[in-house]
Amino acid sequence: MSAEKCLAEGSPAPGPVPQDRLRLYSMRFCPFAQRTRLVLHAKGIKFDTINIHLKQKPGWFLEKNPDGLVPVIETPAGEVVCESHITSEYLDEVYPEKKLLPATPFGRAEQKMLLEHFSKIIPNFFKISSAKRKGDDASGFEAELKEKFTKLNERLVKRKTSFFGGDTITLIDYMMWPFFERLEMFGAQRCLEHTPELKKWTERMLEDPAVKATIHSTDHHKAFFKSYQDGEPDYDYGL
Amino acid sequence: MSAEKCLAEGSPAPGPVPQDRLRLYSMRFCPFAQRTRLVLHAKGIKFDTINIHLKQKPGWFLEKNPDGLVPVIETPAGEVVCESHITSEYLDEVYPEKKLLPATPFGRAEQKMLLEHFSKIIPNFFKISSAKRKGDDASGFEAELKEKFTKLNERLVKRKTSFFGGDTITLIDYMMWPFFERLEMFGAQRCLEHTPELKKWTERMLEDPAVKATIHSTDHHKAFFKSYQDGEPDYDYGL
Repeated sequence: MSAEKCLAEGSPAPGPVPQDRLRLYSMRFCPFAQRTRLVLHAKGIKFDTINIHLKQKPGWFLEKNPDGLVPVIETPAGEVVCESHITSEYLDEVYPEKKLLPATPFGRAEQKMLLEHFSKIIPNFFKISSAKRKGDDASGFEAELKEKFTKLNERLVKRKTSFFGGDTITLIDYMMWPFFERLEMFGAQRCLEHTPELKKWTERMLEDPAVKATIHSTDHHKAFFKSYQDGEPDYDYGL
Repeated sequence: MSAEKCLAEGSPAPGPVPQDRLRLYSMRFCPFAQRTRLVLHAKGIKFDTINIHLKQKPGWFLEKNPDGLVPVIETPAGEVVCESHITSEYLDEVYPEKKLLPATPFGRAEQKMLLEHFSKIIPNFFKISSAKRKGDDASGFEAELKEKFTKLNERLVKRKTSFFGGDTITLIDYMMWPFFERLEMFGAQRCLEHTPELKKWTERMLEDPAVKATIHSTDHHKAFFKSYQDGEPDYDYGL
């Protein structure tokens, strides 16, 4: 695969997945697809990317995932795995090199519980940006997010570790990261001001090779997000 | 633990979990807690139950799970696991007897994807009962649920297996069952009329020892649900 430009309705269906690699169906600016991209990079898995035009989805993509969402992983055997956390756990189970989930059942349960908790925080990011865009008062939403950040900060303080699963990056860090990469895009940068350990965590994450391999600049995020909010997402922005 | 009567705010905190068993914090009529009860029974795990008054939660329970939801599993080591699907996967990993999740990563991913899909169906059950209670027209919601049931039916037809993961019960069957046990309680029994394979699946499930061990009669479900909808849930109904 060369081009990263997205494929839309009417585009020819891609052939079977080559034997020696995986295929990722993605969208360059999607935070959920980035979770899977982070895992693929972190584990050094060979993969090709097909970006999908999420407003004009190709029929062959909807056959693979009737929900029409990215990320989707396809294997050379034709197995299809959807949903960011499911693809991530699947990849970690199939590729034993550089395990991202803890070795103990309780360790894995802890990561899943924190992910469940974090999933309920995600709408807060969007509420802040939506209010600011409309010129509404976002301070209530900001206060809510700050409170959630304070709890995440407390976790790091209590654990005394550099990352959420220990002193090295584990899966939960990658599941949370895409939303922190977009903090300024959401207009929520200020919410991080009073949570020094969480701020340090974001700085440590920026040093990670998988984060570096998948990151977009804040300017690019903002430009894409504006086009998205205007109803005409420019999936190929910057290419 | 003898009594199954629920414990409310102000009740004394239970002591540590005895060495040879697990503790389940539950609510007798909760479909999510039933998922975990099904897994505990199916795997023959020794456990005690503490039922929680979910309208007047004891402080010691909120310390264990600040979200205040059941099910919660507590181990003799003091480890606490929340959320029905997380407790279920945890139990299946810790207790290798009678594995409920498939042995392959893709098999496990398939179960997780179906669970994710099913999670989006759950609100439909409540919408039907809520509309009927208010005397509103529920036919739109019924049509939606019928369509979802048709898709589940197609899965069974396509797989040609007795259950959703094969010819024996696996985890996904137990995750879906509590909502089918309550079909008449929701006033949604008719939705099953045109999906014969799915109907047969419910009949097969009724023969399962774990289902038999955790089931409530439709009359009891209806009586509890009425008290719940009236705003005064009778958690100890029938004791």
